[in-house]
Amino acid sequence: MKIVILGADGYLGWPMTMKLANQNHEVLAIDNYFRRNIAKETNSEALIEGPNLKQRKDLFKEKFKKDFEHQIGDCTNYNFILSTIKEFKPDAVIHFAEQPSAPYSMINYDSAKKTFDNNLNSTFNLIWSILNTNPKCHIIKLGTMGEYGTPNIDIEEGWINVQHNGREQKFLYPRQASSLYHTTKVLDTDLLWFYVRAYGLRVTDLMQGPVYGLFTDESRKHDSFLPNFHYDDIFGTVVNRFIAQAVAGIPLTVYGKGGQTRGYLNLADTLKCIEISLNNSPNQGELIIMNQFTEQFTVNEIAERVKSIAIKKGVNCEIKNISNPRKEMEEHYYNAKHSKLVDLGLEPTLMTEEILGEMFDKVLEKKDLIKHDIALPRVNWNKN
Amino acid sequence: MKIVILGADGYLGWPMTMKLANQNHEVLAIDNYFRRNIAKETNSEALIEGPNLKQRKDLFKEKFKKDFEHQIGDCTNYNFILSTIKEFKPDAVIHFAEQPSAPYSMINYDSAKKTFDNNLNSTFNLIWSILNTNPKCHIIKLGTMGEYGTPNIDIEEGWINVQHNGREQKFLYPRQASSLYHTTKVLDTDLLWFYVRAYGLRVTDLMQGPVYGLFTDESRKHDSFLPNFHYDDIFGTVVNRFIAQAVAGIPLTVYGKGGQTRGYLNLADTLKCIEISLNNSPNQGELIIMNQFTEQFTVNEIAERVKSIAIKKGVNCEIKNISNPRKEMEEHYYNAKHSKLVDLGLEPTLMTEEILGEMFDKVLEKKDLIKHDIALPRVNWNKN
Repeated sequence: MKIVILGADGYLGWPMTMKLANQNHEVLAIDNYFRRNIAKETNSEALIEGPNLKQRKDLFKEKFKKDFEHQIGDCTNYNFILSTIKEFKPDAVIHFAEQPSAPYSMINYDSAKKTFDNNLNSTFNLIWSILNTNPKCHIIKLGTMGEYGTPNIDIEEGWINVQHNGREQKFLYPRQASSLYHTTKVLDTDLLWFYVRAYGLRVTDLMQGPVYGLFTDESRKHDSFLPNFHYDDIFGTVVNRFIAQAVAGIPLTVYGKGGQTRGYLNLADTLKCIEISLNNSPNQGELIIMNQFTEQFTVNEIAERVKSIAIKKGVNCEIKNISNPRKEMEEHYYNAKHSKLVDLGLEPTLMTEEILGEMFDKVLEKKDLIKHDIALPRVNWNKN
Repeated sequence: MKIVILGADGYLGWPMTMKLANQNHEVLAIDNYFRRNIAKETNSEALIEGPNLKQRKDLFKEKFKKDFEHQIGDCTNYNFILSTIKEFKPDAVIHFAEQPSAPYSMINYDSAKKTFDNNLNSTFNLIWSILNTNPKCHIIKLGTMGEYGTPNIDIEEGWINVQHNGREQKFLYPRQASSLYHTTKVLDTDLLWFYVRAYGLRVTDLMQGPVYGLFTDESRKHDSFLPNFHYDDIFGTVVNRFIAQAVAGIPLTVYGKGGQTRGYLNLADTLKCIEISLNNSPNQGELIIMNQFTEQFTVNEIAERVKSIAIKKGVNCEIKNISNPRKEMEEHYYNAKHSKLVDLGLEPTLMTEEILGEMFDKVLEKKDLIKHDIALPRVNWNKN
């Protein structure tokens, strides 16, 4: 299959690029280092960060005897993305090219506008590049479980049948997110769904929970192949942040009561889910939405798991509840369906002690590089 | 009250500006002639179009002995809107500054992108101008009934309680629009609702049906005070288009079966509804949504009403069903609630023979200027 990966330098984009190239797909990997740049601007560089795309590609070729194409370019530039898609003629495009941090999107006007412009314009331009070259191309878009927020009813996979005054209508599941970043993903879905209806695009929108992990079949082959690992308050998701805090010997900072429940999944499972999506493409005019996670945990449960690993590794660890910098419910109903990907063959990799332990050991190698201050909240949107 | 009107040159913005200035509010009227420019670019100039804002302001001052401020500027330029809001210190901003045409938004990439950029960025920048200067300022945003689309259940006013698996949740009513223009309004609502929740903005979002009419207390005083009147396929809404076709002696072109049902309202009622909204501002952190229309009609019913007026005026008139250039349901369930504004004091101006007749007579004065070709569909997004 000919596959374009947008955001190929990222935490998900890079391991996906290696996996598909290793499976002998023809891959074109695109990135503009947007995340690396804003991480630097906010003093949030990753603890683990590979060399640039070109260097990793060369090393990949050497180690795997496989190749892929790469381009450095900005998907918010329509002429760039249009000409690239036109020339490469992909069967599918995997769209990771979005500013991925909720706290970054909540710093100020500039960070909010950058998030809004990057995320919406990259999606808008991708849609039109496909419409104007090959409307049969399958778009796989990474959404987020955060689009749904934390409603007081069960979260379905994308759609809900609403019964009202004796009549019934199927709708996109109503979504209500808790950061501007998550809201841009809601708007992405609205936009994709509109163009699916209007012009018959083929789209899979994957509502993904927080991803954790460093290891895939390919990333194990060389440290330069590891995906980036952020542990700071802006780009680090909770599992990474807790592991880095435990390694550094500082308390695991649970925001508020810690009853926030989310669906999590391992990096290796993200890759499997996207592979499943590639092999189960929608019909023209169809939007497939699947909830992409394998296990639900509260933040308190994650903290306990990481603490338990730390203690087994002989590292003292305490958990500290701190004032919540985010505006979110800290105790709530949460029951999100996630059977579609399992029905299509996903075999979940669970968050075992072994898996957390392997992450812990890798982070331990970089212990001295962990900056304690950036693991604490620097962005607060819960001021009232 | 100190009131900023964004899009003050428009069909609604201009009559609103006059009315509020005439009521001795301190008004700042802002526009950048975006609509006039894209109307020219698409050979869709209005049949009735007043002089520019400065000239109308001078004439208004002469006739009414009242004044208002005006500025020519682009709300997608954050520095412009921020500094303007900061200096004027409004109590309320009425936001009409959006590309208003569904067909325009469906021509090609450029028209879609212009619509997307103008509408979303003007809303985004307005939100942040308010957040960064005076978060207590009331934002009144014009949405559209088209955000809801044509679901098979009753359309509520903004919100719906969903019962699901024995539990209940109140959501924004799920919306699903039939053009990119209408979709940008859906995204506007999502964005406003997010910032209302996150930072306690005060917003009224008015879901308005198609507006018809030329006459308000102020616009009657001088022909230069009439709002613009578009009759073409791109900017002309259906009542205007049918009246111009009847006057010109060409068939009224009903798209498809003509069973498309919408809620309509008279221009004078739009102004009253916004006045009601100004006097009933939301609390901080509250989003008020009201459905702003007074009567439901099918397109066939509108055509029959216009035909009947034409015949009374001694003009031959026929109705012709033509292939639908739009992708929309031509026969469907439609029951949209619209009691909130009536409960707050709106007394509907109904679409009587007298009112349609007065419009007919005014258009008749310009009969020779009507270009027959642009009253027929030039934009088609129903190609499949």
